[in-house]
Amino acid sequence: MKVLVKKLSYLFLFLLVSQFTSPGRSRHIEESKPCKHLVLYYHDKLFNGTDLSNATSAATANATRLGFNFGMLVVFDDPMTKDHHFLSPAVARAQGLYFYDMKTNYNAWFAYTLLFNSTKYKGTLNIMGADIMSAENRDFSVVGGTGDFFMTRGIVTIRTDTAQGDYYFRLQMDIKLYECYK
Amino acid sequence: MKVLVKKLSYLFLFLLVSQFTSPGRSRHIEESKPCKHLVLYYHDKLFNGTDLSNATSAATANATRLGFNFGMLVVFDDPMTKDHHFLSPAVARAQGLYFYDMKTNYNAWFAYTLLFNSTKYKGTLNIMGADIMSAENRDFSVVGGTGDFFMTRGIVTIRTDTAQGDYYFRLQMDIKLYECYK
Amino acid sequence: MKVLVKKLSYLFLFLLVSQFTSPGRSRHIEESKPCKHLVLYYHDKLFNGTDLSNATSAATANATRLGFNFGMLVVFDDPMTKDHHFLSPAVARAQGLYFYDMKTNYNAWFAYTLLFNSTKYKGTLNIMGADIMSAENRDFSVVGGTGDFFMTRGIVTIRTDTAQGDYYFRLQMDIKLYECYK
Repeated sequence: MKVLVKKLSYLFLFLLVSQFTSPGRSRHIEESKPCKHLVLYYHDKLFNGTDLSNATSAATANATRLGFNFGMLVVFDDPMTKDHHFLSPAVARAQGLYFYDMKTNYNAWFAYTLLFNSTKYKGTLNIMGADIMSAENRDFSVVGGTGDFFMTRGIVTIRTDTAQGDYYFRLQMDIKLYECYK
Repeated sequence: MKVLVKKLSYLFLFLLVSQFTSPGRSRHIEESKPCKHLVLYYHDKLFNGTDLSNATSAATANATRLGFNFGMLVVFDDPMTKDHHFLSPAVARAQGLYFYDMKTNYNAWFAYTLLFNSTKYKGTLNIMGADIMSAENRDFSVVGGTGDFFMTRGIVTIRTDTAQGDYYFRLQMDIKLYECYK
Repeated sequence: MKVLVKKLSYLFLFLLVSQFTSPGRSRHIEESKPCKHLVLYYHDKLFNGTDLSNATSAATANATRLGFNFGMLVVFDDPMTKDHHFLSPAVARAQGLYFYDMKTNYNAWFAYTLLFNSTKYKGTLNIMGADIMSAENRDFSVVGGTGDFFMTRGIVTIRTDTAQGDYYFRLQMDIKLYECYK
C-alpha cells in the first residue's frame, strides 16, 4: 500500500515537472481526429483586363522569364463556398496572395486569411504553404486564428477541383484544426 | 481506501496518456489574461517619390485596375513607438509587407516581423493577418517569436489611430501573448 | 496516510484543471534540446537575365528608390543541400519569397516552405522571419509543418555562409524543432 502511494507520488512529480519544463516536446495527435473540421471551396477568378465585375483576383507582379509563370504574384479576395458553384453564397472570404515559383511546373505558394462573418462563425484563420500541383493533395499550415478560431492551429489539405483556362480555378480546402481554444 | 487508490491510479493513467496522445486538443485560454502584454504604435510613412529622408515604406508593386488600390504592395521598415508621436524613440521596428486586396474597400493584408533590440527586450515577433478596415478592431495572429519571445504565440489587435492623406497612417497595436516560454 | 491521499487528490484536480483551462501559459522549453534538429544549406542563384539554366530565383518586383534594394522582391525555388556545394544533391527545396526592406542596410524578410520528399522525410516546414544581416545569427520562426513534420513549430537560425556578387548567396539554416508530433 505504502509503496503504491509512493510510486503515485513520483508519478505526480513527473507530471508536474513535465508540464512546466521540458526539452522539445514530443507528442501525438491523431490526424484523423481534428477538434474542428470544415470543407470549403475556394474560387479564384483572375482579372483578365476586362471582367471587372466578376474578377476576384489580379496579378500585381508579372511572370519573369524563368518559366511557368515563375514570379507572377496574384493578390486575391476570393469567395469560399460550401459547394462547387462560384455563385453560391460565400460563407467566408479568402484574402491574401499566391505566386508561381517553379521553373518546370505551375507550382505556387500561398499566404492568406480566411475571414468568417456568419451566424455560425466570426473570426479568421491564417494560413500558409506550398501548392505542389503535381501532388493530388497538398497540405498548408493553419498558423493561427482569431475570434471563434482564437489561437487555433491545424492543416488545410487542398485539392484542385477544376482549372478552366488561365483565368479560373477552384480548390477544395479541407480545413482540419487540431488545437481549439473555443 | 483501496478503492480510492485504484481510482487515483486510473486518473494517473488517463493523465499520462492524455499528455502524450490525443485527438485534436480542446482547451481554454482566458483572452483577458495574456502572459505578456504590450501596446505600441505603428507609423507608416509611404514614399511619395520625394521625401527620401522621412519615408519608411515604399510601394514595390502598383495597384491594378480592380479598385481601391487592389494589388498595391508596400514593403515597410516602420518605427514602433510607445506613444502617438512619429518622432518618439522607436522601441521596435516593424519590417514586412502589406497589400490592399478588396475591390470595395481599402482592406489590406499584413505579414511582418516586430524587431526588439532594447534593454527590455531582444528578439522578434512574427505576425500575419487581414486588416478589415470596416471593423474598428482587427485581429492579427502572432505565429511565432524568437529571442526573448522564443516560440511565443498570441494575438495583435489593431486599431487605426489616424490616417492622414495617402502617405501616413498610424495603427495602435495591442500585442497579447498567450504562450510564453521565457 | 489519509492525509497523503487527500493531498494527492488535490494535486490531481489541479493537474486536470490546469490541462484544460488556464490564463496565458508560461512554460519553459530548453533551447538547446530540440526534439528534431537538421542543418542544411540554402543556395540562392538570382536570375541575371541570361543564366536561365542555373538560376533558382528571380526578382519579380524591382527595388524602389528608397535605398539598398528596398522593395526588391524575389521569388525562389532554391535547393537545400547537406554541405556547402550548390551542385550537391538537394535534400529539400525552399520555395517562397524574400524582399529587401531597409534603407540603410541589405536587410531582408523571408517567408517560405521547405519541401522534403526523400526516403528520410516527406512533408513541409513553413517558415517566416526577418533577416537582420548586421547580426551574425538571425532567427526565423517555423510556424507550422505537414507530413512528417505535422503541426511542428520551432526556430531556424540562419547564418550567411557566403555572398558572391549580386547573384549568389548561401545561408546555413540550423533548423530546431521544439514541438514534434511524429
